Amino acid sequence: MRVLVTGAAGMIGRKLTARLIRDGALKGQPISHLALADVLAPDKPSASGPDVSAATVDLAAPGAAAQIVAARPDVIFHLAAIVSGEAELDLDKGYRVNFDGTRALLEAIRAAGNYRPTVVFASSLAVFGAPFPDAIDDDFQLTPLTSYGTQKAMCELMLADYTRREIVAGVGIRLPTIVVRPGKPNKAASGFFSSIIREPLAGSEAVLPVDESVRHWFASPRSAVGFLVHAASLPRETLGTRINLTMPGVCCTVGEEIDALKRVAGAKFAARIRREPDPLVARIVSGWPRRFDTRRAKELGFACEAGFDEIIRAHIDDELGGRIPG
Amino acid sequence: MRVLVTGAAGMIGRKLTARLIRDGALKGQPISHLALADVLAPDKPSASGPDVSAATVDLAAPGAAAQIVAARPDVIFHLAAIVSGEAELDLDKGYRVNFDGTRALLEAIRAAGNYRPTVVFASSLAVFGAPFPDAIDDDFQLTPLTSYGTQKAMCELMLADYTRREIVAGVGIRLPTIVVRPGKPNKAASGFFSSIIREPLAGSEAVLPVDESVRHWFASPRSAVGFLVHAASLPRETLGTRINLTMPGVCCTVGEEIDALKRVAGAKFAARIRREPDPLVARIVSGWPRRFDTRRAKELGFACEAGFDEIIRAHIDDELGGRIPG
Repeated sequence: MRVLVTGAAGMIGRKLTARLIRDGALKGQPISHLALADVLAPDKPSASGPDVSAATVDLAAPGAAAQIVAARPDVIFHLAAIVSGEAELDLDKGYRVNFDGTRALLEAIRAAGNYRPTVVFASSLAVFGAPFPDAIDDDFQLTPLTSYGTQKAMCELMLADYTRREIVAGVGIRLPTIVVRPGKPNKAASGFFSSIIREPLAGSEAVLPVDESVRHWFASPRSAVGFLVHAASLPRETLGTRINLTMPGVCCTVGEEIDALKRVAGAKFAARIRREPDPLVARIVSGWPRRFDTRRAKELGFACEAGFDEIIRAHIDDELGGRIPG
Repeated sequence: MRVLVTGAAGMIGRKLTARLIRDGALKGQPISHLALADVLAPDKPSASGPDVSAATVDLAAPGAAAQIVAARPDVIFHLAAIVSGEAELDLDKGYRVNFDGTRALLEAIRAAGNYRPTVVFASSLAVFGAPFPDAIDDDFQLTPLTSYGTQKAMCELMLADYTRREIVAGVGIRLPTIVVRPGKPNKAASGFFSSIIREPLAGSEAVLPVDESVRHWFASPRSAVGFLVHAASLPRETLGTRINLTMPGVCCTVGEEIDALKRVAGAKFAARIRREPDPLVARIVSGWPRRFDTRRAKELGFACEAGFDEIIRAHIDDELGGRIPG
């Protein structure tokens, strides 16, 4: 079993890499080689386990995709992308990295000939755009309201076509908003969903720019990795023609997030959240989806946390060594 | 008012050209110049009226799109495409003509700078794929089951993104199956929907390869042209963010088509239809949509025939000089 991860230097890419090395196997078969690719040099983990190689690659550059599929990986986790904000600011770069990079990967696979790898594509809720029904099911139209969402939707369509043509065995998974993101606060409009949990637990103050009634759709980084691994393991015939799926998540409000923090860690942590309304952030977030009907993904065995308490506990386990700080 | 038609040599392109020359105006403004572009040399109509130019152009070729937008047409009807069967047989050509050609057009417009034309894009019901609800509304997901449908859906998404970014004012219209197509029978799986009307009226026998219970969604060539002209005339602000629309059509069965032929022309014409079941055609057609809920398009003023009798009368008027042959 040879495995390739694109976008391996990103947050999810690094966690997926760690999981694959820890498991040492995928789809019940030992991983003989794990190839990591990213525009930034991916860390090559030093742990014992599968043979690991790391390549610094811009997928959309001529010949780059052919280079990374030359070893004919059996499973490709395609995570490489620039984020929503950057794709909105730089139209050329967004289409080049997020769309042309994916197309180049699919074309390189096709050109290889007599080769049909499993391709797990990290898509996004951004393929959907307001106005929304109360719960968005998998039948709902794709009307993205960002260039990032447009690029992800175009990739979903092309992945489905190349799967139908038996060039790849594709699965597109639309990840919920991932919380609690480790690391420093960033300027993403969605950053507060994580920082109001992460910063208080790290002893710092967090700023909440929206009302506590704001509702959204979440899963932990650990669940995101679980979705990817499960997607790779699905038997090819189970998906049929509709290979792009919204992933399960925890639907809750910011207020419920804060209540969960109080329950799991204590009221003193929640007291470190400072309300500082930001109308711009509030406006951006108001256009985001709130709830999904992910019956199909659940029937296919995708699973995530049952509630926000579990999401916080996953953060404490995976990032804070399992201990709530004093 | 400068107007450009791509795919001008195709059946709809020629009928649209004739209509624009006849009207001499679009959006209430006189047409000063009409530019026709196609990979096949478009006929340059000799009638008096607007100044007409014709160019033989492959939109996906380097520089071609820039060349046809250099004159900064106010309205672009983008019809250029290869058909479903060809796109399925030749993956490279389909993506190149149907997708890259459209992208090149959008990019050439963007590169022109300080220019925001109306772009009317001829999309297709093929953006939808079975299984279907009884009536498919505009909220239904895009899960095409052909490469042609995939390419049209990708173009719809990109057109919406470039419209949101105010690079163009785009409208995508998903045309019903167009009947009665003039000309010779062709090998398209959908050909019989037209030929069972056209051939009997032309004194020839027609072959019906499917059961009379087969139901589908139709409009006349005249209505297709009407949709395009109406789409160009919509005020920019009426569409909002959801710029891709399924067009109204006549929902009827093959049996109802034949009944209409009897009513409009007489039973002797219907007697020229020979039943010759073709399981392959029956299987292909069974995956096609049957009925749409086009409330939104109707509210926006798109209109077509009220029933199949009118579709046959439009054919008799437009192709047979208004007379039912003896």
